[in-house]
Amino acid sequence: MGTDTFRQENASLLVLAAISLALITILSVWKLKQFKYRLVNETGGAMFYGMLLGVAVRYLQFDGAQGIKNHTCTCTDLNATPPFVMVNISSQGHWSSPLDSTSQMGTFNLDVLFNVFLPPIIFYGAYTLDQKRFIANLGSVLTFAFFGTLISCLCIGVCMYGFTRLMVLLGQAADGDYVLIDCLLFGAITSATDPVSILGLLSDLRVDLDLHTLLFGESVLNDAVAIVLTHAIATYDRKGTGHAFDPSAFLHSVGSFLGILIGSFCMGFIFTIITALLTKFTRLRESPLLETSVVLLLSWSSFLSAEASGLSGIVAVLFCGLSQARYTILNLSAEGRSRTKQLFEVFSFLGEIFIYSYMGYILLTFPPHVFKALFISGAILTVFISRACNIYPLSFLLNLGRTNKITCSFQHFMVFAGLRGAVAFSLAVRDTETEAKQTILTTTLLLAGFTIWLLGAAADPLLHALDIRMGEDSEEDSKDFSSEVSMRGPDTARGLWHNLDHKYLKPMLTHCGPPLTELLPQWCGVFARIFSPTHVQEDEEQFCEMELHTSPLNLDKSEPPPTPDDSGSEPHDDLLEGDLGLGTSPVNTMETSVNTS
Amino acid sequence: MGTDTFRQENASLLVLAAISLALITILSVWKLKQFKYRLVNETGGAMFYGMLLGVAVRYLQFDGAQGIKNHTCTCTDLNATPPFVMVNISSQGHWSSPLDSTSQMGTFNLDVLFNVFLPPIIFYGAYTLDQKRFIANLGSVLTFAFFGTLISCLCIGVCMYGFTRLMVLLGQAADGDYVLIDCLLFGAITSATDPVSILGLLSDLRVDLDLHTLLFGESVLNDAVAIVLTHAIATYDRKGTGHAFDPSAFLHSVGSFLGILIGSFCMGFIFTIITALLTKFTRLRESPLLETSVVLLLSWSSFLSAEASGLSGIVAVLFCGLSQARYTILNLSAEGRSRTKQLFEVFSFLGEIFIYSYMGYILLTFPPHVFKALFISGAILTVFISRACNIYPLSFLLNLGRTNKITCSFQHFMVFAGLRGAVAFSLAVRDTETEAKQTILTTTLLLAGFTIWLLGAAADPLLHALDIRMGEDSEEDSKDFSSEVSMRGPDTARGLWHNLDHKYLKPMLTHCGPPLTELLPQWCGVFARIFSPTHVQEDEEQFCEMELHTSPLNLDKSEPPPTPDDSGSEPHDDLLEGDLGLGTSPVNTMETSVNTS
Repeated sequence: MGTDTFRQENASLLVLAAISLALITILSVWKLKQFKYRLVNETGGAMFYGMLLGVAVRYLQFDGAQGIKNHTCTCTDLNATPPFVMVNISSQGHWSSPLDSTSQMGTFNLDVLFNVFLPPIIFYGAYTLDQKRFIANLGSVLTFAFFGTLISCLCIGVCMYGFTRLMVLLGQAADGDYVLIDCLLFGAITSATDPVSILGLLSDLRVDLDLHTLLFGESVLNDAVAIVLTHAIATYDRKGTGHAFDPSAFLHSVGSFLGILIGSFCMGFIFTIITALLTKFTRLRESPLLETSVVLLLSWSSFLSAEASGLSGIVAVLFCGLSQARYTILNLSAEGRSRTKQLFEVFSFLGEIFIYSYMGYILLTFPPHVFKALFISGAILTVFISRACNIYPLSFLLNLGRTNKITCSFQHFMVFAGLRGAVAFSLAVRDTETEAKQTILTTTLLLAGFTIWLLGAAADPLLHALDIRMGEDSEEDSKDFSSEVSMRGPDTARGLWHNLDHKYLKPMLTHCGPPLTELLPQWCGVFARIFSPTHVQEDEEQFCEMELHTSPLNLDKSEPPPTPDDSGSEPHDDLLEGDLGLGTSPVNTMETSVNTS
Repeated sequence: MGTDTFRQENASLLVLAAISLALITILSVWKLKQFKYRLVNETGGAMFYGMLLGVAVRYLQFDGAQGIKNHTCTCTDLNATPPFVMVNISSQGHWSSPLDSTSQMGTFNLDVLFNVFLPPIIFYGAYTLDQKRFIANLGSVLTFAFFGTLISCLCIGVCMYGFTRLMVLLGQAADGDYVLIDCLLFGAITSATDPVSILGLLSDLRVDLDLHTLLFGESVLNDAVAIVLTHAIATYDRKGTGHAFDPSAFLHSVGSFLGILIGSFCMGFIFTIITALLTKFTRLRESPLLETSVVLLLSWSSFLSAEASGLSGIVAVLFCGLSQARYTILNLSAEGRSRTKQLFEVFSFLGEIFIYSYMGYILLTFPPHVFKALFISGAILTVFISRACNIYPLSFLLNLGRTNKITCSFQHFMVFAGLRGAVAFSLAVRDTETEAKQTILTTTLLLAGFTIWLLGAAADPLLHALDIRMGEDSEEDSKDFSSEVSMRGPDTARGLWHNLDHKYLKPMLTHCGPPLTELLPQWCGVFARIFSPTHVQEDEEQFCEMELHTSPLNLDKSEPPPTPDDSGSEPHDDLLEGDLGLGTSPVNTMETSVNTS
């Protein structure tokens, strides 16, 4: 009992330290913001305090650490109860022994961090994305996220390979320490720009909304690509025959890339379908508490199911968030919607602080850090180069198709705003077996610190210098949209997505849109009747009409509803895509929009 | 990597199982309630589904369990990273080896359960307690909670000792298997009536509000007494010399009882003071997200700090919840208040379901269950006897002092409504070393199941039979109060609590009440000026006035504010106690009230 109590007290102390860190971060960053000091946001602050704790632990080596070391549990204990939730004790296995030797103060278990705190951040980011603008810019966002990340990965990989050759030439590394695949892995890892810090930056600065959507949408989706790409490269690394190119391993990793991306996407979407049908066909709306709980549990399940089936949980929860905000939200009650948003907001806010504190902490306490000056300076340089190789050519190509061009100043700012953060860190920390991989972790952490602090602080002056309009009012902007729409009239070309979304998914998953019985062919009659039962439809019609005209997440904002004759049943109100969402056509305000506030 | 992935997938599967269980519970209980079928509530439902899962695991023995067994991590892994948050892997050490032999499906780690899910339940219960009525009935509630629990513990202990002697006589147990101290321990454990299931029962049935306050207040506070009492008896058991009475060990355990109770109370209150001062003197109110986060983190810290200092976390979080609802809540913004309440509501709701599912699950899968028919039937009988010995005499004594008597039908219902649940289980499961203690765990679990299902189902008919008014409207009731007050006028006697609360704590911790500079003696001038800075006071005065006239947690309810001349600065508005809160005097509606809705 004595040792038990002792261990429990120590565990409590560890969590207390984490909580105190979070409180200090919250209060000091908030105080700084009050003084209109915008250079530091929560992510930077949390990382800073994490580093302070790291310094304290490293140089004071206080008793707690020793205490834990002397009281580690026996293996039987662990056998007995498979630890809850977060339980992958696996990944840190790689760096367990080095950590052992210096400091035991883990403060957070890595997997708690990634399995509990990261999913709500990603979910909240996706859930609160401005859907209207996101869909309007879908083509561009997808181009940047997919091709941009591939370009970025290759570019960083090749450049860094050059730097490692230089290191060999200068005698700073042995030949063979850093192979091309390591450099590509580093490229994939650092291609993930960070939605958390970018969101923090953008919401503090209130930049142009299209730029906001492009940057944030890209950062959210390129995480998915970077995660899967990293996995694919790791797969190639394991399967491959070393330095020579191995076509079968390459094919395998390409297959794994596509398989995981598509599989995770489907997994996220399946859980949205379950949630949407559950909230559509039951009267859960009567209890906001139940609604919120069900949405929370099912969204979390999307993450867990993906992890359990060997897919990427983060990618699944990302698509789950995107689709929940598009369909499920329409079935929720007003209170349920605001509760769900607020719940995820708190989770996301605290998760962000915990993760970045931990990043700062680990930067100073991770024992096998490998600081290679040339690698680090090369990485910082390369990150800018790769970002330029990604943004400028793709913007040029996209501008060929866009009527609403991505201006040069937008492009400059996008190159600049490639902050790195939690996802890159989570990818780097998963494997630290070789020296090359330890170098990658160290460099990734420094890169995150550098981009978050320096670029974050420089963003405000840069926006002024580039003359990008700030502090824009979203309401005013949406009026612009509707006037443009009335001038243009409905476009005749309709994309695949639009058809699928408006003709099938919306009517099936929500009470909005035309009844399925009208849309589906005769032989689908039974199916159509099941998914649009008339007794529910009648009750909900008014609610759904109302939903269509107001932004589901901004409940306090009361826009005057447009005339009823041009809403709802006409399927041309969402995406007028002559350009497959490249950003050409302004979108209609009648559509449900989700404003990131 | 292969094993890692495998383990992670398994962990995800375990959590998925728990989430599915929770979803099924939520949906089916909610469906039953829709059909006006009130006999089952969430706690009973969760326990039932937990048992179903237990049956499945026990008789199917599916592969997952085997999988985990084969892939347990090595000790070095665990050494490396002291697991996060919940990390006391200690207590289940006692029953690790038996569990090992049958099933690995722990689904939840016990300490996650008690350190993560139990505190929000207790906090939410305390936070949403109807403060006005609670203070009006404080004397009675404390009497039942303190003396009632002691009586109950002694009564159960002595009766069960009789039953164990009978077991020895009948040859069902060896002499010495069950000593008096085991029986007293069982008494202490089962004296904790369960706020979670009682709250579920009462809010479904909507009983008389005074009865509600008495029952719920008692169940919340007697947990504290039972927890500390169990600890004290365990201390005596360790220190004592076996069967003979040991005065020094007895004194030690009495000291530990008082020390832990008072220490935990202070710890909870200290964190309330920190939260209240932080929300009073900063402008956190401008951001509801920050407010909510700060209240959440600090309230959780009260639990952790108490655990870290060897006190009772549950007791600390209980008093923290009570005092946060009395002081901090007045400093929060309207949105911050509703967010905080909703956040804890979700945590509490899900925590309740997880804990009760687990109880059901463990009832069928805990390997060293010791079923002693005589002990179990004795326990069921004794629980009623002890409850009668507690309620009837104490009610008689209390009625001597109360003008608003506890009627006989109330007393019958109180005897009946002694449901046992999570806290009793958490106390019983902490120590299962000896056969006697395993018997205690088994019996406690069965007792919880019996009281939750049978008594829970019988409560509705019983209320009808006893003719206790149901479906009462709280608004109507508060009008009764105010009319009574105007007839009686202010009472002259003031209790110690009232003085402390109104003259010192409220003005110091909130912006309400008279300024401290008027109340404190001259020599406290500096102190008084620090805690009532005029620049804040002026801004907040109006807010505080508003707060005093409306219930802080029921934001939608708009009561007409009383005339301003009899509010605020006069300290007679809260507790008109000629009876030290025994329930004699009706209380004034101007006071801040927290309605459990």
